[in-house]
Amino acid sequence: MITGKNYVGFTPSAKGSKTYKTFNPQLNAENEDVFTEATSEEINEAVALASKAFRTYSKISGTEKALFLNTIAEEILALDTLIETYCKESGLPEGRAQGERNRTIGQLRAFAELVAEGSWVEASIDTAQPERQPVPKPDVRKLNIGLGPVVVFGASNFPLAYSTAGGDTAAALAAGCPVIVKSHPMHAGTGALVASAVVKAAKKTNMPDGVFSNLNSSGIEVGQTLVKHPAVKAVGFTGSIRAGRALYNLASEREEPIPVFAEMGSINPVVMLPKALAETGSSWAKTYANSITLGTGQFCTNPGLLFGVKGDDLTQFINVLAKEIVNIEPTCMLHPNIKSAYQKNKDRALNQDHISIVANYDKEVQINYAKQAVITVEGTTFLENTTLHQEVFGPFSMVVQCENLEQLKTIIYKLEGQLTGTILASDGELEAHLDVMNAVQNRVGRLIFNGVPTGVEVCPSMVHGGPYPASSDSRFTAVGTQSIKRWVRPFCFQDWPLKLLPLELQNENPLGILRLVNNKQTSAKI
Amino acid sequence: MITGKNYVGFTPSAKGSKTYKTFNPQLNAENEDVFTEATSEEINEAVALASKAFRTYSKISGTEKALFLNTIAEEILALDTLIETYCKESGLPEGRAQGERNRTIGQLRAFAELVAEGSWVEASIDTAQPERQPVPKPDVRKLNIGLGPVVVFGASNFPLAYSTAGGDTAAALAAGCPVIVKSHPMHAGTGALVASAVVKAAKKTNMPDGVFSNLNSSGIEVGQTLVKHPAVKAVGFTGSIRAGRALYNLASEREEPIPVFAEMGSINPVVMLPKALAETGSSWAKTYANSITLGTGQFCTNPGLLFGVKGDDLTQFINVLAKEIVNIEPTCMLHPNIKSAYQKNKDRALNQDHISIVANYDKEVQINYAKQAVITVEGTTFLENTTLHQEVFGPFSMVVQCENLEQLKTIIYKLEGQLTGTILASDGELEAHLDVMNAVQNRVGRLIFNGVPTGVEVCPSMVHGGPYPASSDSRFTAVGTQSIKRWVRPFCFQDWPLKLLPLELQNENPLGILRLVNNKQTSAKI
Repeated sequence: MITGKNYVGFTPSAKGSKTYKTFNPQLNAENEDVFTEATSEEINEAVALASKAFRTYSKISGTEKALFLNTIAEEILALDTLIETYCKESGLPEGRAQGERNRTIGQLRAFAELVAEGSWVEASIDTAQPERQPVPKPDVRKLNIGLGPVVVFGASNFPLAYSTAGGDTAAALAAGCPVIVKSHPMHAGTGALVASAVVKAAKKTNMPDGVFSNLNSSGIEVGQTLVKHPAVKAVGFTGSIRAGRALYNLASEREEPIPVFAEMGSINPVVMLPKALAETGSSWAKTYANSITLGTGQFCTNPGLLFGVKGDDLTQFINVLAKEIVNIEPTCMLHPNIKSAYQKNKDRALNQDHISIVANYDKEVQINYAKQAVITVEGTTFLENTTLHQEVFGPFSMVVQCENLEQLKTIIYKLEGQLTGTILASDGELEAHLDVMNAVQNRVGRLIFNGVPTGVEVCPSMVHGGPYPASSDSRFTAVGTQSIKRWVRPFCFQDWPLKLLPLELQNENPLGILRLVNNKQTSAKI
Repeated sequence: MITGKNYVGFTPSAKGSKTYKTFNPQLNAENEDVFTEATSEEINEAVALASKAFRTYSKISGTEKALFLNTIAEEILALDTLIETYCKESGLPEGRAQGERNRTIGQLRAFAELVAEGSWVEASIDTAQPERQPVPKPDVRKLNIGLGPVVVFGASNFPLAYSTAGGDTAAALAAGCPVIVKSHPMHAGTGALVASAVVKAAKKTNMPDGVFSNLNSSGIEVGQTLVKHPAVKAVGFTGSIRAGRALYNLASEREEPIPVFAEMGSINPVVMLPKALAETGSSWAKTYANSITLGTGQFCTNPGLLFGVKGDDLTQFINVLAKEIVNIEPTCMLHPNIKSAYQKNKDRALNQDHISIVANYDKEVQINYAKQAVITVEGTTFLENTTLHQEVFGPFSMVVQCENLEQLKTIIYKLEGQLTGTILASDGELEAHLDVMNAVQNRVGRLIFNGVPTGVEVCPSMVHGGPYPASSDSRFTAVGTQSIKRWVRPFCFQDWPLKLLPLELQNENPLGILRLVNNKQTSAKI
C-alpha cells in the first residue's frame, strides 16, 4: 500500500533518484519501504496544480468543503495499516497512535462543521446610504477568503495530528486553500498512507486535482524550494526554532514576502507560589514527574522550567520530584537523531556551572530510550546564564530556586516567549500575587491554573501559540478552529450586484449565518 | 502653541541638536516653526515608558479606553490652529483639511464605541467536562489582548487621518497598546498639535505616562531605531513600497521578529468591459478624469491603470478622458520632493518605448503644482515592460489597450497585489465575464462595481489592504474597526479562578457582550 512515491496532485510520481527509508527506533533498524524524494520538476508541478486548483477550490461551498474534510476523516479511519506504520516509524505506543488518530479525525470534523455552518467567514455588511451628505455612502460587504496555496511542514512529534492531514492542513483546506505537504522524513510511510486517504477523498468528492499534494523529502531542499516558490502564499510549520526561523527568513526575503506560521520551541514555565508549595508541593511533584516524562518529554508543552522561592518547601518538592521521576520507566524517543540531540542538550545543561543534578536516571535502557533528568539552579545563576533558558527537548526539567518573588518576576519578564505558563497556588493565594500572573501572561499564549501544561484541548477557545519564539506570529493559534484565520484574508465588495455576491453576503442570508450588518451582529436577512 | 519639542510620554523634550522645518508648497517657502529631532536617549525613554505603561494600560476597561479616545477627539476639535497648520504644511485646501479632521474624529469615536461595547475581544469559552473519558475536559477561555508598544509612522498624504492620531494610532490605543509616533517630517507641526491633544486627553482621563509619545524625525534613523528596539512589539506604516519594505526587513531581521503592517503602493486597476465602454464610456471618462486628479492624485487608491479591449469604443473613451483631464485645473502637491518624484516617474513613463501620450497638461502652473498626464499602451507592450507596472504617485494614469479579454485576464493575473480593483460593466455584462472578476479578485483587497476607487469609506466592512505590495500582510485591513486585529493576540486561560478572569470571560457576562460559549454565539450568561 505504501508505494514510496510522491503525490503530485492526484498522481503518484517518483521522477527522482534520491531515495530514503524511515527508521524504527524501538528495533533500532530501518523500515523496509523506500521513498523517492521529490524533484524540482515535481515541486513545480505540484505548485502549478495547486494554483490552478485554487481558482475553483476557493469558490466551492462550505457544504462541499465539509464533505471533503469528513471524507478525509473516513478514509483515514479506513486505512488498515496506519497504526502499525505509525508505531514503527515513531517508537510511540499503539494507544498514543490511536489517540492521535482520534484527534486528527476530530480536527477534520470540527473544521467540516465550521465551514458547513459558515459564520467563520466573518461576513460584514454596511448597506448604502445614497442620500448621505456630503457624499453618498456606498454598499460595502466583506468576508474572509483563502490566501492561495499553502505549504505544510509536518511535525516530527505528531505524525498524524500535526502532519499530513493534521491541524494546519485541515485549517487550510477549510479556508479554501490547496495544500502541499512537505512530508516529514521520520514518518514518510504514515504520511504516505494519510496522503492516499486525502487523495481518495478528494476524488470521491470531486475536488480539483492539485487541491492536495504530498512531497517526500529527506533534507531541507524540498522545503526551501517550496517556501521560495512565487505561487506559494503561506506556510505552516511545527518544529524547532532553528528550522522555523530559517523558513521564516526565507519567506520574508522573497520578492513577495508571505506569512509563515511556525509553532516552535517552548519551555513552558511553571510558577509554584509559596503556600501551594507548602500545602501541596509533594502531590504536585508526583504530578509533574509524570508531566515531564509524558510521551518521552516530546510535547511542545512539556514543562521544562519550574520556579519557586528557595526554602524547605521547595527543597521538599525537589526531593519528591527527584524520587518520583527516577521511578518512571524510560520510554523510546522518536528517532536516533532526536535521542542524540536530547543527550547532547541534556549533557550541556548538566555541565553548566553552579547547577545541581537532582535526578538522573542511570539504569541500563534500550537504545533510543531517553533517560530522564532534573537539575536545579539558583535564580541568580539562571538570570546570568542564558544557556539554561534553552529548550532540552525530551524528559528533562529544571527547578529554579528564586531568592524571593521579586526575583521570580524579574526572571519571568526576561524569558523568551512561551506557549504556556502555569501557576500553582493555594486557595486565595493568586489574588495576592496578581503581579506574578501579569508577568507570566506577558510571556505566554496560555495560562494554566493548578494543572499541567501537557495536554492541549482542541476547542475554539484554545490558544496554541505565543510570543516569539513560541510562534512566529503570536496573533494566531495553531490549534482549534480559530487557526483557520492564519490562511485567510478579508475581501471586500463595493456596490457589487447583489445576485453576484457570494451567498454569505447576499441580502437573504441564504446560509443563515451570523453577520455584522450595519454594525449589529445578526442572523437576520436584510 | 507648537514648541518643536518631542513628547516623550507626557514630557516635552528637546535634547538633540538636529533641527528642521516644514515646508509650505503653496508659498514654496519654509514654515517658521523649528522642530528638534529625537535623540537615541529620547527614543529609549519613550519606549521604556511605553513598556511600563503597557502593564497597566493593557488592563484598563473598555469604558476607560473609550473615554480616552473620545477625549482625544474633543481635544483635536479644540485645537484652534490645526486647520491652518495642516494647510500650510501640505498645500491641501481647507475643505480637505476639515474633511480629514472629521474622518480622524470619526475614527477615534468608532474605536471608542467598539471598545466600550466590548465584543471586539472575540471572547470564547469552553466550559469544563470533568467526567469526560478518557481525560477530563478543562475549562478554557480566550480573548484578544494587546501586543505591547506599537510604533506608528504617519503618512505624508494624510496628515491627520493616517498620522499622529489617525487610524493606526486609534486602533492600537483601542487594543490596549501604547503608541509611539514617528512624526512625519512634512507635517511635523500638524503632528505636534495633534500630539498635544492626545497628551492632554491622556492626562485628563488618567492614562499612564508613556501611553503615547511623539518623536520628531527628519531622516530615517529615528524610525529605524524604533523598529529595532526589543521592547517595540509591532509597527504600523503608510507610505512607499521602498520605505515600507525596508521597515518590514528590519523587523523580520530582529532577534524577535515583530509584525509590520505596511500599507504601501497600489495602482488600482480598472477594467472596462466592452458593453460598458460602448454604452457609457464617455461618461466614465469624465468621472475618471476627476478621480485621477482628485487630491492631486495623491491617494493610495488613485486609479493608475485602465484596461479595455482595443477598438473604437476604447479610442473614444481615451479621447474624452484626454480632453476632460486637461481641462481640470492643476493643484498643489504635498511637498517639492513629492512633486519632483512625480515629475521623474511621469517622465520615465512618458519616455518608455511604444507608448502614446494621450494628455499632458502643458500650460504654465505654479511651482509645486502637478501637471496631469495620461498615456496609452498596447497590452503586449504592457506585459513585456514591467517598468510600466510601477506606480506614478500623482495625477497620472495609463490606458492599456488589450487585444481581447483573454489577454486582459492574463495581464491582470500578472499584476502585483493591489488595494483595489474596479470593474465597469453594463447591465448583465459582468455575469458573462466572471472569469475577469475572478482574476481581479485574486490581485486585490477590494472590488468596486461601476464606481471609482478613490474614496475609502470608514466602516466595519471596509478592507484597505491587499496582496503584497498593496500591504505587507493581506490578512489585515488598515481602515475600519477591524484594523484593531493587527495589534492583538489571542490569550487563553485554562481552569482559571472565575473571579480572577477578565470581565469579558466571567460567567455572568457583566459586559453583556457577544461570546462563543461551547461553540455557540450568545450574549447570555453561563
